[in-house]
Amino acid sequence: MELSIIKIGGNIIDDEGKLGVFLDAFAEVKGAKILVHGGGKLATKVAEELEIGQQLVDGRRITDAETLRVVTMVYAGTINKQIVARLQSRGCPAIGLTGADGDAIRSHKRSHPTIDYGFVGDVDVVNTGLLTSLLALDRTLVFAPITHDGKGQLLNTNADTIAQELARGLSTAFEVSLVYSFEKSGVLLNADDEGSVIGRIDAATYENLKARKVIFAGMIPKLDNAFAALRSGVRKVIIGRAEDLSLLLAGRSGTTIIHE
Amino acid sequence: MELSIIKIGGNIIDDEGKLGVFLDAFAEVKGAKILVHGGGKLATKVAEELEIGQQLVDGRRITDAETLRVVTMVYAGTINKQIVARLQSRGCPAIGLTGADGDAIRSHKRSHPTIDYGFVGDVDVVNTGLLTSLLALDRTLVFAPITHDGKGQLLNTNADTIAQELARGLSTAFEVSLVYSFEKSGVLLNADDEGSVIGRIDAATYENLKARKVIFAGMIPKLDNAFAALRSGVRKVIIGRAEDLSLLLAGRSGTTIIHE
Repeated sequence: MELSIIKIGGNIIDDEGKLGVFLDAFAEVKGAKILVHGGGKLATKVAEELEIGQQLVDGRRITDAETLRVVTMVYAGTINKQIVARLQSRGCPAIGLTGADGDAIRSHKRSHPTIDYGFVGDVDVVNTGLLTSLLALDRTLVFAPITHDGKGQLLNTNADTIAQELARGLSTAFEVSLVYSFEKSGVLLNADDEGSVIGRIDAATYENLKARKVIFAGMIPKLDNAFAALRSGVRKVIIGRAEDLSLLLAGRSGTTIIHE
Repeated sequence: MELSIIKIGGNIIDDEGKLGVFLDAFAEVKGAKILVHGGGKLATKVAEELEIGQQLVDGRRITDAETLRVVTMVYAGTINKQIVARLQSRGCPAIGLTGADGDAIRSHKRSHPTIDYGFVGDVDVVNTGLLTSLLALDRTLVFAPITHDGKGQLLNTNADTIAQELARGLSTAFEVSLVYSFEKSGVLLNADDEGSVIGRIDAATYENLKARKVIFAGMIPKLDNAFAALRSGVRKVIIGRAEDLSLLLAGRSGTTIIHE
C-alpha cells in the first residue's frame, strides 16, 4: 500500500495564501498520507510577545524550558489545530498528533559534550502500531514537531527529522514516498535558475554532481538524508515546491531521488 | 462495555501536586476511559503576558479572535500535550484530541440576539466512529475543550459540555460513567461542611432537596445537566473531588446521580 509523507516548511505556514493552495492540493492526494509541519515564524513572534529571549549557540536555537513551552503551544496548539480544522473543511479526515500522542515518536534529550541544547529530542523509535491503525481507518495524520521521552518530558524535534523517521518506521508496512517541500523548485543545476531543476537523481548522479560542485552547501545534508531514507526502505524522496504538490507526487515537478 | 469519562476542573490543572495525584489515579482506572480537561488559570496568564485584554459581557468571557488563539495554544498545546506526556510516563496510552481532530465534535458559532459571544461553539454532533475505534485499540483519549465548525473555524467550547456530549454520544456503544470533578467532595447537605456529602441522588431526592432549598445556586445547573445526561442514556454521573477518583468510580466517595 502506498503512503505519502509530506513535510512543509515554515515559509508555507507563514504565508496564508500559499498554505491554502497547499492544503487544497494535500486534501486531493489519493491514498494514505501524513503531513509534517514545522513552526515558521509564529513561534519566534509569540516568544517575542512573551518577552522570552532566544538563546543561540553556534547559530542553533537552544530550547530552554520557556522556549519549549512556546513551541509546544504554537506547533501542537495553534498551527496543528488550524491545519487540522482547515483540512476537515476540505473533506480530509485529519487527526493532529505529536510524538507524545499514542507514544508515536519517542526520543531522548540530546546530550553533547560541550553544548546544552536544552529540551531538544533525538528520535529513538517510531511506534507504528497506532499510526498504521489510523491510516487503515482512512485517517490523515498531521504531525507537529514535538516528541517525548516516555518519562513525561516533551521535547522539541526537527520537523525534517520527524518526517524522515516516520518514513523509515512506516516503510516496512507501506511503499513510502517522502516529500520535502521547500522554497525552491527542486535541486537546481544552477542555484540562480529556478528553471534548472534536476528531475531525477540516483546515487551515482549525486556523487558526480557533488564532485563537480554542482551540489553544495545546504543541499548536501538534505540529499544525504534523502539517500539515508532510501537505504532504510523508503521508496522515493521528492524535493520541491509545496504549491506544486500534485505535480511533485506525479513526478512532473521537483527532484525525485531514487536508490540506485 | 464500560467507559469512564472524567472531567477535571481548572483548579486541578493549576495545582502541580493535585494534578500528579489525579494522573496517578487516572492511569490506574481500568477499562476504556476519556479525560476532558478545562483550561485553568494558564490561559488567563498567557493572555495577560500577551497583553490581550479580556472582554467580559454579563460576567462571561467573550472569545474574540485573539482569545481563541490563546485558548487554542494553551488548551490544545501546553495543557493537552503535557497531560498526554505525563500519562504516557505512567504507562497510560494517551492520545490528545480536540473536536477538530477526526471531526470528533462539530459545533456552530453561538448566535444570540444581543450578545456576540465571539468564537464560542455550541455542540451539534459527536462523531463517535473514530473515538470508538481508538477506545477499541485500548487507547485513552484526552480532550481539550476546543471544537470546530467543519468550515475551518476552531471554536472554544465549555469543558463540562464536551464531557457531557461525549458521554451522550458514546452511551449507545458503552455503559458510560461520567465524572465531574471539582473542588468540593460532592453535593453537600450543608455547603459549609465537606463531611455532609450526599452519597446518592435520584430524581425524586433531587426535587425534594431543591424544594427544601438544600440544593441551590451553582449546583442546580450542574445537577440539571447530570439528569439530562442520564435521560440521554448515560448510566451514572458522579460529582466529587478529583484526588478521590478511584473512590468516586467505586461509589465510595462523592455524589452519584442516578436515573430514578
